Amino acid sequence: MLWLNGEIHDGPVAPFDLRDRGLLLADGLFETILAVNGVALCLADHLDRMEAGAARLALPLDRAVLETAVAAVAAGAENRTGVVRLTVTRGPGQRGLRVPADARPTVLATIAPWRPEIAFSPLRLALVTLRRNPFSPVSTMKTLAYLDNVLALEEAAAKGGEDALILNTAGHVASTSMANLFALLDGRLVTPPVDDGVLPGVTRKLILALAPGLGLAVAERSLAPKELGEAEAVFATNSVRLLAPVSAIDGTAIRHHTVIDALSQALREALARACGFDPFAKGS
Amino acid sequence: MLWLNGEIHDGPVAPFDLRDRGLLLADGLFETILAVNGVALCLADHLDRMEAGAARLALPLDRAVLETAVAAVAAGAENRTGVVRLTVTRGPGQRGLRVPADARPTVLATIAPWRPEIAFSPLRLALVTLRRNPFSPVSTMKTLAYLDNVLALEEAAAKGGEDALILNTAGHVASTSMANLFALLDGRLVTPPVDDGVLPGVTRKLILALAPGLGLAVAERSLAPKELGEAEAVFATNSVRLLAPVSAIDGTAIRHHTVIDALSQALREALARACGFDPFAKGS
Repeated sequence: MLWLNGEIHDGPVAPFDLRDRGLLLADGLFETILAVNGVALCLADHLDRMEAGAARLALPLDRAVLETAVAAVAAGAENRTGVVRLTVTRGPGQRGLRVPADARPTVLATIAPWRPEIAFSPLRLALVTLRRNPFSPVSTMKTLAYLDNVLALEEAAAKGGEDALILNTAGHVASTSMANLFALLDGRLVTPPVDDGVLPGVTRKLILALAPGLGLAVAERSLAPKELGEAEAVFATNSVRLLAPVSAIDGTAIRHHTVIDALSQALREALARACGFDPFAKGS
Repeated sequence: MLWLNGEIHDGPVAPFDLRDRGLLLADGLFETILAVNGVALCLADHLDRMEAGAARLALPLDRAVLETAVAAVAAGAENRTGVVRLTVTRGPGQRGLRVPADARPTVLATIAPWRPEIAFSPLRLALVTLRRNPFSPVSTMKTLAYLDNVLALEEAAAKGGEDALILNTAGHVASTSMANLFALLDGRLVTPPVDDGVLPGVTRKLILALAPGLGLAVAERSLAPKELGEAEAVFATNSVRLLAPVSAIDGTAIRHHTVIDALSQALREALARACGFDPFAKGS
């Protein structure tokens, strides 16, 4: 089932204008949103980020249409639960790179099953050679130009990792292929700044907001790769895995720290308050 | 008119599997090929490059299918002449970044009008802040992750340029948003090496092959931006504009040099020999 430009289609195939610049030039944005019992978690934050990206791309969006699309696919899923992929593109264009003045964006939403057990589960990382580019606005937006992430994950998997540890071109820690990274260093929570070529993650933002309430100072600053090895804890955040403890980097184990449990609990409670129920409760 | 997975469609809309990883993740490749009188110029070079990229992406391709797609859209165009866009994607996939083991690639070909007068016509460049990433294999393949190029061109246009002068993250000259760059320095033709984050252009390769026959030494080496200002000539190459003299960078005029005329003539003759007719002759 999918929602495309206002219409629901039962299968994955629908009539599509193949001049779409999302397909031809990666000219578009997406969000991955967890829906549980019909509630799209942190929906406003996801749509805020998409709108901020669209403003930078001069891509006109109608927020009400985005909300309708997400609600439609969530309503149609088993238990109204799943991982929503919301995609917007520039829409069809003529040949060439120049952005058309009369763009009619494409809006697409789909939903895939979510396995609750992947939330809060640990991740083994492998350092990859591919690096993120802090000199491109594309590195700080969730655009369709995701092939770097695909290749980084394949490289990590070939090295025995479940996800990639990606540096930026300056050699600083950036992110994984699908999540932001945090390190606990001398009792302080450190995460790379967006200017290092990092996506401003929705769960990253929540963690930065929740940490002070647990007595944890937070810092957005460049991180050297060797600091990860010296850290008291390392974890990754995204909207599907929520908070994933990093259990090893390149086969070297990373200690577990009670701060991870406290932050996971605080995150879970914050999401439960926003939903009106605990989305991670068994049987929810 | 378009050709999609073996079928011709009269309009731009066709049934399409919206799980396609080309659309969702820019997981695919393309080529832009000039067809004149039904002859696709440098077709073997374009398909060689696409196959090399596909090998690096572990994306299975059937060269005969690619040739069929290009021939079909060229045959259907007015005067059998136009700019062919050949696109291949990984095809449909499940949610997530991991490359499916059973990928069924999508092959799409379209054709757009070509205006012969843009061949060999000059270009004004504007230096942009966006930079290319030499630490990503994506920079050296013609992948669907083209949003950097789109944004670089928009930035250049806002600065009064017709195309962008793009540096790489190390500050060396890389390319324009759609063409390779060459500089004539002390009588030697210099172009950035692919390792600087540059696409191995089909026309770039032809120029490197033809220059020695004109008594010009060639060098693939990193170029400093200030060398462009000191150069005896600067030009850009791609498969649609062929050889475009760079007439100005950021409003500062660049001299014309007879080497540009000689290389343009040699390029035109080489393509005419390959076609059996001069594709740039008036009325062809």
